[in-house]
Amino acid sequence: MHSIKDLQDFFCDELKKFKLNNEPSGLNAPIEYILAIGGKRVRPVLVLSACEMFGGVLMGAFKPAMAIEVFHNFTLMHDDIMDEASIRRGKVTVHKLYDVNTAILSGDVMLIYAYQLLEGLDGDLFKKIFRVFNKTAVKVCEGQRFDLNFESRLDVNIEEYIKMIEYKTAVLLGCSLEVGAYLGGSNDTDAKNMYEFGRNLGIAFQIQDDILDAFGDEEDFGKKIGGDIIQNKKTFLLIKSFELAGKDERKQLDFWLGQNGTNNEEKITSVIGIYNKLGINDEAERSKKVFMEKALSHLDQVKLDPERKKVLIEISDKLLNRNN
Amino acid sequence: MHSIKDLQDFFCDELKKFKLNNEPSGLNAPIEYILAIGGKRVRPVLVLSACEMFGGVLMGAFKPAMAIEVFHNFTLMHDDIMDEASIRRGKVTVHKLYDVNTAILSGDVMLIYAYQLLEGLDGDLFKKIFRVFNKTAVKVCEGQRFDLNFESRLDVNIEEYIKMIEYKTAVLLGCSLEVGAYLGGSNDTDAKNMYEFGRNLGIAFQIQDDILDAFGDEEDFGKKIGGDIIQNKKTFLLIKSFELAGKDERKQLDFWLGQNGTNNEEKITSVIGIYNKLGINDEAERSKKVFMEKALSHLDQVKLDPERKKVLIEISDKLLNRNN
Repeated sequence: MHSIKDLQDFFCDELKKFKLNNEPSGLNAPIEYILAIGGKRVRPVLVLSACEMFGGVLMGAFKPAMAIEVFHNFTLMHDDIMDEASIRRGKVTVHKLYDVNTAILSGDVMLIYAYQLLEGLDGDLFKKIFRVFNKTAVKVCEGQRFDLNFESRLDVNIEEYIKMIEYKTAVLLGCSLEVGAYLGGSNDTDAKNMYEFGRNLGIAFQIQDDILDAFGDEEDFGKKIGGDIIQNKKTFLLIKSFELAGKDERKQLDFWLGQNGTNNEEKITSVIGIYNKLGINDEAERSKKVFMEKALSHLDQVKLDPERKKVLIEISDKLLNRNN
Repeated sequence: MHSIKDLQDFFCDELKKFKLNNEPSGLNAPIEYILAIGGKRVRPVLVLSACEMFGGVLMGAFKPAMAIEVFHNFTLMHDDIMDEASIRRGKVTVHKLYDVNTAILSGDVMLIYAYQLLEGLDGDLFKKIFRVFNKTAVKVCEGQRFDLNFESRLDVNIEEYIKMIEYKTAVLLGCSLEVGAYLGGSNDTDAKNMYEFGRNLGIAFQIQDDILDAFGDEEDFGKKIGGDIIQNKKTFLLIKSFELAGKDERKQLDFWLGQNGTNNEEKITSVIGIYNKLGINDEAERSKKVFMEKALSHLDQVKLDPERKKVLIEISDKLLNRNN
């Protein structure tokens, strides 16, 4: 079995061979741009490691892993339009570098390319993977819709928030692991446990993301602390503070939510001050741990030698104890 | 075998039973809205009639027919954003009724629903239909990209124009017929001829659309004559006039292309005047006929009793001799 680094390298080497038509101009160049920017390649690495865990060969899992990576980047391209984001992974977003129409259309064709990458699969395996891919893709859109709807609401509760991040982020990690498991020859029961492992891991992963935005180390994190706070983003931290705030803290929170753009540094310091007072960091860590334990209990139920699960446990450790 | 009207009614009745989740709010309502607006349901009727022509049963073709109709409406929803269109089939477009983000996201999930509608298919049939659907969907996006690229060009030639409408419009008619043929039990050769029949029919259909915009009867056409002229749209008519114009006519055309919004009526009358002088209507009719004959020669090659082809011939007559 290969190390995380090996799997990332294998994926990135194969990705470089993935070539698209030059014509019509303006359709595929933005896709090559967003795919090249990279990131940690979490999802394809999950597909590949799950496949190997069940005894499958890497090469057979590359195209489905690529399908999931292409799908993920399609959602980023469209989400960045909706969120009016200018920067993604330190680079200019597609709709800013080109224009909104380009980001819409190139995103659309990426979604089709993702499906096209599944064409090589056969029979029952194809059908199973097609179904979990469809079901997941719908959920990801639903998650984005929940997120858009939350923008104009001040009464979002933690349960709703967890559902939103489950749909928007976590199910695609579950899907990656289930698809990888099927590719490696898993039965349905183990594949479902792999899905549940990934789904719970994904929720913990997103809570960790929220924690890092307020409590991360700016240098390790690689971006400025407090971006979510400036944008009044409904994170686990903010929603939990609404829940725990007394009259005074609520008043302060409401005041800072009403401040836009003039005194950002003060806003960040003050909101983090409220988080500290209410013990929000501990609350978030506790919740993260609950989902992490659920995740591991599903991995435990997978009927394979613990030795084979080591790479995946290492990946989840990295994801959940990361500083960036 | 059923009449066109029967097939439309069958499709519309089944469509009414197609229900989507209410949650999250704002995701599926725009989809139900655009699907209800309707239109002639050309593509699903093509699927259904091709299926029956080869001896298949209608009910087995409904979901794939629906997949193609959903896909088509996804492209309309996104194209309307890109074209900044306010009205479609006499109704407000989705991005105007809701907002751009809604039209992007609901369009995205429609594309996934289209794939999900293929889940019921099995084995080899599933694989064939999946491949032709993917290939076609990519071409439709490429066609839209060509169309966007043409906006800023004055040197588009007829060959490029035909390729654009082939990709943007015609291949989906080809795909509808090929999918219908496979569903009805066709072999690969006949299915390919059905595709070619539809592809050529689609090109003729689009040229007809261009003709109607300038030479249609306003009452039959159901919208104002000259919309393409006002927008300086690169239609068959305009591109052909560039090709045939002498120095004087070119000067006049350039003048009118430079006029935006102030004297639309005069612009329409003058441009149609130039078209008449250059015999553009006849040129367009001639070209339409060439593609129509190619289409029919492919239908001829399909190894079935001519009696079974009658409904499809009737459909193509209706499409190409329509006034609206």
